[in-house]
Amino acid sequence: MTQIQNNKTPVTILGLGPMGQALAQSFLKNGHPTTVWNRTAKKAKDLVKQGANQANTVADAILASPLVVICVLDYNIVHSILHPVSSELKGRTLVNLTADTPSSARETAAWAIEQKFEYLDGAIMTPVPTIGNSDALVLYSGKEEIYHTHRSTLASIGGTSTYLGTDPGRAAAYDVSLLDLFWTSMSGFIHALAVAKSENIAAKDILSYTKGIIGILPDIMTDMADEVDTGHYPGELSNITSAAAGMKHIIHAAKAHHLDVSVLSAAKHIAQKAIDKGHGKDGFSRLIEELSQSE
Amino acid sequence: MTQIQNNKTPVTILGLGPMGQALAQSFLKNGHPTTVWNRTAKKAKDLVKQGANQANTVADAILASPLVVICVLDYNIVHSILHPVSSELKGRTLVNLTADTPSSARETAAWAIEQKFEYLDGAIMTPVPTIGNSDALVLYSGKEEIYHTHRSTLASIGGTSTYLGTDPGRAAAYDVSLLDLFWTSMSGFIHALAVAKSENIAAKDILSYTKGIIGILPDIMTDMADEVDTGHYPGELSNITSAAAGMKHIIHAAKAHHLDVSVLSAAKHIAQKAIDKGHGKDGFSRLIEELSQSE
Repeated sequence: MTQIQNNKTPVTILGLGPMGQALAQSFLKNGHPTTVWNRTAKKAKDLVKQGANQANTVADAILASPLVVICVLDYNIVHSILHPVSSELKGRTLVNLTADTPSSARETAAWAIEQKFEYLDGAIMTPVPTIGNSDALVLYSGKEEIYHTHRSTLASIGGTSTYLGTDPGRAAAYDVSLLDLFWTSMSGFIHALAVAKSENIAAKDILSYTKGIIGILPDIMTDMADEVDTGHYPGELSNITSAAAGMKHIIHAAKAHHLDVSVLSAAKHIAQKAIDKGHGKDGFSRLIEELSQSE
Repeated sequence: MTQIQNNKTPVTILGLGPMGQALAQSFLKNGHPTTVWNRTAKKAKDLVKQGANQANTVADAILASPLVVICVLDYNIVHSILHPVSSELKGRTLVNLTADTPSSARETAAWAIEQKFEYLDGAIMTPVPTIGNSDALVLYSGKEEIYHTHRSTLASIGGTSTYLGTDPGRAAAYDVSLLDLFWTSMSGFIHALAVAKSENIAAKDILSYTKGIIGILPDIMTDMADEVDTGHYPGELSNITSAAAGMKHIIHAAKAHHLDVSVLSAAKHIAQKAIDKGHGKDGFSRLIEELSQSE
């Protein structure tokens, strides 16, 4: 299918997992000439029907656009794809929306300087279905000028786009922190459903209550964030000892039904360390100090 | 201070931790003659100023009201307080708002039958500041007739009061499941702030993003609850392998800053077990099957 000629920046998408496909669709919908490539070519099929150009090689894909977006499983895969084609990248801009660690992001930015291409690191903070609509959130860090040059093109991804500063690791630092909250909470949710199931409570029956729990978190988080920043952890309304007692009940109830309790046992162990040091009457937010292994 | 005479049911509150004090206040505000007792008497001081009667002994406290509410750290403390005064309880109703396991609740209900007093088990699902206002949520289970008799009095606690059925362990089963979600999520939040801090990101700077993460949970939970109930775990948009890759990045970033990674490592280990069995392309909700140790 021939691309419609327009004045919109051509974009190349490398990696067509669910997120890469959603990204390609959002650029296509916004009228950007869009070239796609994936290791297994068949994943491009639907996108080609929607007007994307499918490149046969990574090199061809890169040469098709001044702006190259990559979104794969991790930075090892980013490097295995891009190292053989670093000369093709020269003079172009790579926007890396793959999730990985802050140090990987900084190393990749340093490699981009060596290879003479521009680099912006990004982190997509919202699930696939949000891409292209107002709920999407993408964080960026790296050279400010590059962010501003491509901002209007990247706006196709939708929602909120936030620039976090020149440190290329900044977006990844937010990303790992926020994914930490996400995956730990998700693990807690699935475990909660397992405990409920063991007591013959269907997930649909407890669902509205789990949403109620989620609903009380933002206010608590506001208070705890302030406590963490000030290093002052009042425990008047809820303290570490009562948190540990609660965890103990959950572990006891889960063990009675032969459920894995490793996640909550690890959390309780951290609380117990604080209690053993005499901090049981302090607020839960004090546990941030127990997480540092160098203490 | 003398109680104002009225036709409202007298209520006794045993245990004056932050939650017990909030409960006593809510009954006082609603005009119930309120008697309070705590192991350390000084905690009753403010409540007495607000019109509560302070009992010198547990037995006196129980004899003052047909409805006795107890809210302490756990059921061991409930039993240590109440066993010596079981004859005083006879013919009265005990509402146990202490958090513990479903089996403890069932044992306590059985003990109540033996001792010839009425028993309702309850679980307070919202924090202390919600007590007495519309945000409170309390779950009850036990004899339906007893719940209906005391419903209007217990309404002083505020918000939503839900009766879950005759099994006295039902409220506790919901409670441990929901607290599982709560404490695991809270542990994830504090750890997320620790990772952010290690990257020189203040809690206040990442707070709005953490609330964004919390904001995307309810829709995901709706989908996952349905997957758990149907035993069908599609992984088209997000699968266990990508979750495990995300967890690996977080663990790697946290370890680089010498942070404790025990909670997320335990969560990742569960995901890895599923991947090793060939379920990596399934959705995250499938992990509920890995939590059962008997498999």
